[in-house]
Amino acid sequence: MDFESFFKSEIDGLHQEGRYRVFADLKRQRGEFPKALRHTGEGAGEVTVWCSNDYLGMGQHPAVTEAMKQAIDECGAGAGGTRNISGTNHYHVLLERELADLHGKEAALLFTSGYVSNWAALGTLCSRIPGVIVFSDAGNHASMIEGIRHSKCQRVIFQHNSVDDLRAKLMAADPAAPKLIAFESVYSMDGDIAPIKEICDLADEFGAMTYLDEVHAVGMYGPRGGGIAEREGLMDRLTLIEGTLGKAFGVMGGYVAASAALCDFLRSFASGFIFTTALPPALAAGALASIRHLKASNGERFAHQSRVRRLRHCLDKNGIPHLANPSHIVPVIVGDAAKCKWISDLLLDNWGIYVQPINYPTVPKKTERLRITPTPLHTDADIDHLVGALHALWSRCALARAVA
Amino acid sequence: MDFESFFKSEIDGLHQEGRYRVFADLKRQRGEFPKALRHTGEGAGEVTVWCSNDYLGMGQHPAVTEAMKQAIDECGAGAGGTRNISGTNHYHVLLERELADLHGKEAALLFTSGYVSNWAALGTLCSRIPGVIVFSDAGNHASMIEGIRHSKCQRVIFQHNSVDDLRAKLMAADPAAPKLIAFESVYSMDGDIAPIKEICDLADEFGAMTYLDEVHAVGMYGPRGGGIAEREGLMDRLTLIEGTLGKAFGVMGGYVAASAALCDFLRSFASGFIFTTALPPALAAGALASIRHLKASNGERFAHQSRVRRLRHCLDKNGIPHLANPSHIVPVIVGDAAKCKWISDLLLDNWGIYVQPINYPTVPKKTERLRITPTPLHTDADIDHLVGALHALWSRCALARAVA
Ligand SMILES: Cc1ncc(COP(=O)(O)O)c(C=O)c1O
Ligand SMILES: Cc1ncc(COP(=O)(O)O)c(C=O)c1O
Repeated sequence: MDFESFFKSEIDGLHQEGRYRVFADLKRQRGEFPKALRHTGEGAGEVTVWCSNDYLGMGQHPAVTEAMKQAIDECGAGAGGTRNISGTNHYHVLLERELADLHGKEAALLFTSGYVSNWAALGTLCSRIPGVIVFSDAGNHASMIEGIRHSKCQRVIFQHNSVDDLRAKLMAADPAAPKLIAFESVYSMDGDIAPIKEICDLADEFGAMTYLDEVHAVGMYGPRGGGIAEREGLMDRLTLIEGTLGKAFGVMGGYVAASAALCDFLRSFASGFIFTTALPPALAAGALASIRHLKASNGERFAHQSRVRRLRHCLDKNGIPHLANPSHIVPVIVGDAAKCKWISDLLLDNWGIYVQPINYPTVPKKTERLRITPTPLHTDADIDHLVGALHALWSRCALARAVA
Repeated sequence: MDFESFFKSEIDGLHQEGRYRVFADLKRQRGEFPKALRHTGEGAGEVTVWCSNDYLGMGQHPAVTEAMKQAIDECGAGAGGTRNISGTNHYHVLLERELADLHGKEAALLFTSGYVSNWAALGTLCSRIPGVIVFSDAGNHASMIEGIRHSKCQRVIFQHNSVDDLRAKLMAADPAAPKLIAFESVYSMDGDIAPIKEICDLADEFGAMTYLDEVHAVGMYGPRGGGIAEREGLMDRLTLIEGTLGKAFGVMGGYVAASAALCDFLRSFASGFIFTTALPPALAAGALASIRHLKASNGERFAHQSRVRRLRHCLDKNGIPHLANPSHIVPVIVGDAAKCKWISDLLLDNWGIYVQPINYPTVPKKTERLRITPTPLHTDADIDHLVGALHALWSRCALARAVA
């Protein structure tokens, strides 16, 4: 087989579908966020980033950056080993305690990313609990799907956020089989929120474990930033809460919080936890500072929500359609890969606005979108500039307006 | 099902087998490596680390730590998004170029860890190349095994480092099927090295792709630290070279280096690359500095090899048996999980020497070992202290001596 030709032809297919991805080469500017420098063949120019998952701007918060620099001064660059073989740093220990406390659980366990935490935790639970059946929301993130798939366990997909469908599927399953329900709180691409309480009620009724991904909620919801489950007073009803340190907390890494026995189980059996270099001390220190700050401070959360409301309001006034949802994610659906990329390119080149087009496989085909994420650091002027640009483009590209 | 009891009983099983893992809670001390502070219930005490994979001490090299701190000052803490959605930082772009150059390839692609790079690259190649058969060395790392397993492709395990067995298995396979040979250069637990040239010859003969994990070799072998394949002048014969930024380079992250089309293919199709927050700019900047330093400087590599030789010589003089191998890894086999842990505990408590016991599943049962990794920063006195302690323990525990 001619491997090179095969790879090239697969890439050609993406070009033809208009969904070949070009990464914007950015240089984030600490102190200037959401502004960044964008490098192109011709040099570098300033852009306003409107699609970052550094939702609260904590990635440039002095408490975070100083903690990181201090940890580098104290401990150096990397962890130097896997968690078991010399790689456990005191910052990991402190961070795991902090995360357990954040979610009101006995323990927490760090992974190198949110992706790895989902993949490894679900992969391990589903392959090691004998005969387990997994009930997985149809909208679950790739990392959860891959973990479940990897385990080769029996899996049942229930309709997205449908309590009725979940109930029907639980009823249809072998009553004696152990069951696990895997879902998210805030779904990242539509911004809708799961009926956590109702799902926990079903879990109780059917004796199922609950596995909740709060990746797009931690830091941002709940009085201490514990996520939607904290806000709704439901944390104790979830068997396991999974989160990331890479979005609202502004750093990188993932984790699960659960009972001491469950965390110890994953610590002892999860290949994706065991066989990999631990997070650098500086990342653990930075995340620790970020979590501690957001536990005590509501200012970022209030400002965030107020920016989201203002952006929605301005979009509405200008008839730019966006998905209604109760979260901070503002999806403007374009519904065509090539057009979506074209709009994004125009925004970048003519208005200095960077919103990456989101296409398949991240979202289903025909729902290609601009996924806009306002942060507390976007000013009124930034919002006006963005909405003005979208307004002009919507006229120019003859895109459908929202009906008032 | 009572999930808590299930988790507890699984953990109890580990205790009974004597292979329940206790992580040493360390605080690395920049400037003092290989010394570290070890936290226990009773406080913190100094230990000498003898099992780190920060093989060259680059994790505390000023070029690396300063580059990280500078990147934090410039760009802040995290990348703020996936590579596609605002998370590509200029440091990622520079680092990918540097890695491509290091391995003499057209391109390179970063992942969040070496584990993820193996899992995602092999998982994607093996599931997307129609009808591919993977020939996988029996000693391959968990991350490679999981990636291959995940893809559900046809897989053939060949005897560890056996060119004859590989040939026999290639001959037995469908001549028309595309083939991929996956192996490592330095095997991490035994420290033996693959016959890379002979495997590449077979690959040519049978038209197979070659996939080489150089995780335990990059930075340490070859005139510019390109690994064993560089040292042997074989880099151009490998289709793909995989490596880590978390061991000799002292930071964290993983990568593959290959043709532009192959990297673009993985960039476009690998779930574990696409759906995860990118490496923080500071990690990319630190790794970049580390690679550049080791490309130009042989001092660390020479000092490393001389420390390894000295340690082996002292062990031999004292009749402490260790696996012979041509690399920098010095495995002292104990062959029993409980005894291995006991020796490790005594070293720690009585001599301030930290060598983590290595047990199943990291190594096969009955080959439990102390895996000793000297670095350029271990002094003669450190070596004498370690060997003296082992000598005393070998007498006390009535362990077998090596026959002179
Ligand atoms: C719902 C969800 N879970 C998990 C992840 C992975 O988290 P991380 O970026 O920390 O790998 C993401 C996004 O990246 C996500 O959207
Ligand atoms: C052979 C091999 N490949 C890959 C890895 C994973 O690399 P990383 O620690 O960067 O995840 C390891 C060890 O951790 C390894 O020993």
